[in-house]
Amino acid sequence: MTTTRESAVAARAAALSLAAAPRVVKDAALLRIADALTTQAHALAEANAADLAKAAVEGLSEPVVKRLKFDVPKILAAAEGVRSIATLPDPVGRTLLSTELDEGLDLYRVTCPLGVVGVVFESRPDALVQIACLCLKSGNAALLKGGAEALGTNRAVAAAMLDAARGQGVPNGWMALLETRADVGELLGMDDLVDLLVPRGSNEFVRYIMDHTRIPVLGHADGICHVYADRAADVDLAVRVMVDAKTQYVSVCNAAETFLVHRDVAPALLPPLLAALEAKRVEVVGCPRTVEATGCAPATEADWSTEYLDYKVSVRIVDTLDEAIAHVNRYGSKHTDAILTGDREAAARFLERVDAGNVYWNCSTRFADGFRYGFGAEVGVSTSKIHARGPVGLEGLVTYKYKLLGHGQTVADYASGERKFTHRDLGRDCPL
Amino acid sequence: MTTTRESAVAARAAALSLAAAPRVVKDAALLRIADALTTQAHALAEANAADLAKAAVEGLSEPVVKRLKFDVPKILAAAEGVRSIATLPDPVGRTLLSTELDEGLDLYRVTCPLGVVGVVFESRPDALVQIACLCLKSGNAALLKGGAEALGTNRAVAAAMLDAARGQGVPNGWMALLETRADVGELLGMDDLVDLLVPRGSNEFVRYIMDHTRIPVLGHADGICHVYADRAADVDLAVRVMVDAKTQYVSVCNAAETFLVHRDVAPALLPPLLAALEAKRVEVVGCPRTVEATGCAPATEADWSTEYLDYKVSVRIVDTLDEAIAHVNRYGSKHTDAILTGDREAAARFLERVDAGNVYWNCSTRFADGFRYGFGAEVGVSTSKIHARGPVGLEGLVTYKYKLLGHGQTVADYASGERKFTHRDLGRDCPL
Repeated sequence: MTTTRESAVAARAAALSLAAAPRVVKDAALLRIADALTTQAHALAEANAADLAKAAVEGLSEPVVKRLKFDVPKILAAAEGVRSIATLPDPVGRTLLSTELDEGLDLYRVTCPLGVVGVVFESRPDALVQIACLCLKSGNAALLKGGAEALGTNRAVAAAMLDAARGQGVPNGWMALLETRADVGELLGMDDLVDLLVPRGSNEFVRYIMDHTRIPVLGHADGICHVYADRAADVDLAVRVMVDAKTQYVSVCNAAETFLVHRDVAPALLPPLLAALEAKRVEVVGCPRTVEATGCAPATEADWSTEYLDYKVSVRIVDTLDEAIAHVNRYGSKHTDAILTGDREAAARFLERVDAGNVYWNCSTRFADGFRYGFGAEVGVSTSKIHARGPVGLEGLVTYKYKLLGHGQTVADYASGERKFTHRDLGRDCPL
Repeated sequence: MTTTRESAVAARAAALSLAAAPRVVKDAALLRIADALTTQAHALAEANAADLAKAAVEGLSEPVVKRLKFDVPKILAAAEGVRSIATLPDPVGRTLLSTELDEGLDLYRVTCPLGVVGVVFESRPDALVQIACLCLKSGNAALLKGGAEALGTNRAVAAAMLDAARGQGVPNGWMALLETRADVGELLGMDDLVDLLVPRGSNEFVRYIMDHTRIPVLGHADGICHVYADRAADVDLAVRVMVDAKTQYVSVCNAAETFLVHRDVAPALLPPLLAALEAKRVEVVGCPRTVEATGCAPATEADWSTEYLDYKVSVRIVDTLDEAIAHVNRYGSKHTDAILTGDREAAARFLERVDAGNVYWNCSTRFADGFRYGFGAEVGVSTSKIHARGPVGLEGLVTYKYKLLGHGQTVADYASGERKFTHRDLGRDCPL
């Protein structure tokens, strides 16, 4: 039995070779994995059926069972996803900067993998496939811990993937499955071996991870998103966008939780907005002025910092644009916030001053998503300001290093003034 | 008396306006600051003289006194530095990506300030000037704590800078001086208000900061840099570069601490190398084979992870390139490591597989520096892989946000298939 630490040490070793693996090797392995999932779809679905049977005995909730299900159509879709990852450009080895420091002394900033990425995710076997393949594509070794309900499926899927990639030039140890909660505890302490953690799941879970590790964490806990209807908002547009932001899919992080309404537009907007929300069975709580205007239930102070993830919204009337901005910066979670207005100056001020990863003018907060942004793959959505912000594609799994290619230059010659730096843009890719 | 938390709250508020300040406002304030330093140079030097007198009474060491000294020539040089920061391009408001998601739905990734930056630095008044001005240029509010020995100077310098910037469109609260060790303790706990910490000073100090805060830290603790002479190294080049890497300035993070020597080149290289090191009075400790070959003192296991910051070096003979790479990845601090070789394949393998921010071929590790890299200004050198790596210029003080400009689009229309994403590169700057 391999211990968690042994897996991590193996992953670290694998990461060093994987960093040097050319695109063709990584993509060939990805296609072999896709083929293995396709040809073994029935066997994998059987392993999943056993997990589903156990879930039925244990009386797990319907949403959990829905996510857990990994039948043949879902497996084939996952295989298709792997093939599409293989077609994405290689995020590794891109030259971001090239400067001649002096004749024959050339500096290049080149992207490279982070190293070892730890991912802890919910009971969704398709997540295992996607995350492992995003790590492989970006040259990172992956330590993966899925939800306990999916353990049987994950074991079968991981074995099929490891088997398919073997002998393709991908180093052993490129992926390992962690199996227990104790393994996760160990993972959190391995800041000497693990470069990034990507936790997926409930807010409480993500916050727990963030609070219990020194390893950098990519992700977000809360998603408290606002839509602000400015005094110059078009009423029809505002109703349409607000209803979409709240109801198109309520249980996701980029759904709106609070509507802010400028007092001048409130009389025209609130009646049709509340009618539209009622038609979608959305519960509305409001500030005292909203209560007075609409007869909705009163909001408590806690409502403004609550992510409902449900058919419920809080509404507040504000006197000015700046009051709306201040509300968002105080109660928001730096995820996604939108202004609806015909006033370009007001939009510019909101977009500039709201401190969030995604700031929108006249459209729904639900667009905050890597696929909708055209990134091809999404690692997660980050509300951190450090490293990667907003929806994060493959580039969130790479960093860069500086390569300096010389001919025996010493700093003494420049310190003495004998030689001078040229700092000329080379405009070319790193030759090695 | 303003408390640390009050200063931080004021800085947070200032940061929101500073984020929207145009380049012309920030640069005008910088030039006013430079002018104030120039015209008040004598008064500031007098404040410094009082700190120096106190230092003499307290018997502070010569290097500390040297750093503390802020006489008229140093003040004028600092003012020149501020003027040169004003000439750098604005790191804020740069469009990094522009994509049409659909007709009339345009996505832009635009750089913006981090917000509030806390900097804790040694007793160098010139550092106060430089850091405050880099923060101002990048639109960040700054909370600054300098060494206690420089308190009188820092108060005078900070007052002059705040006074010069007042009424120039820069919000009050853009900079605040923290004065006590207790203030630093409070700063470490303010992860709700502070976006980045930049600690400067001794390794122990930086490590303490990293271990006692949830705020992201930009910087590095150790700088254990290696120079590896490969079997195909040119002996003259190797002696020249190794001596430079070790002795050009011993007390800095990018100085070499360990030399690795391929066994095939050792007989030719070690005698002239050790003679050159002896001429510079460098103490040499070595692995058993180096001891046998040269008669130097033996290295202990601890030597391989020691940053001497002094005229001392450890030397190890290795059998293969991969053994050298493994040594660097085991004992190095991911800062700067060099290979000396005429073999291009060996160089490529070393540069690919050594996990460090700066990897060099045939030149001295001492080049790892923001000014030498042509960045114009240096915030610090990062050994983290997250956010910014290697020497970090102004771009380490900014992040980005996504601005999505629409005309009332909802996600429902795309989920239903009624509309499709175009994901077309716009190749233009964000219009607001």
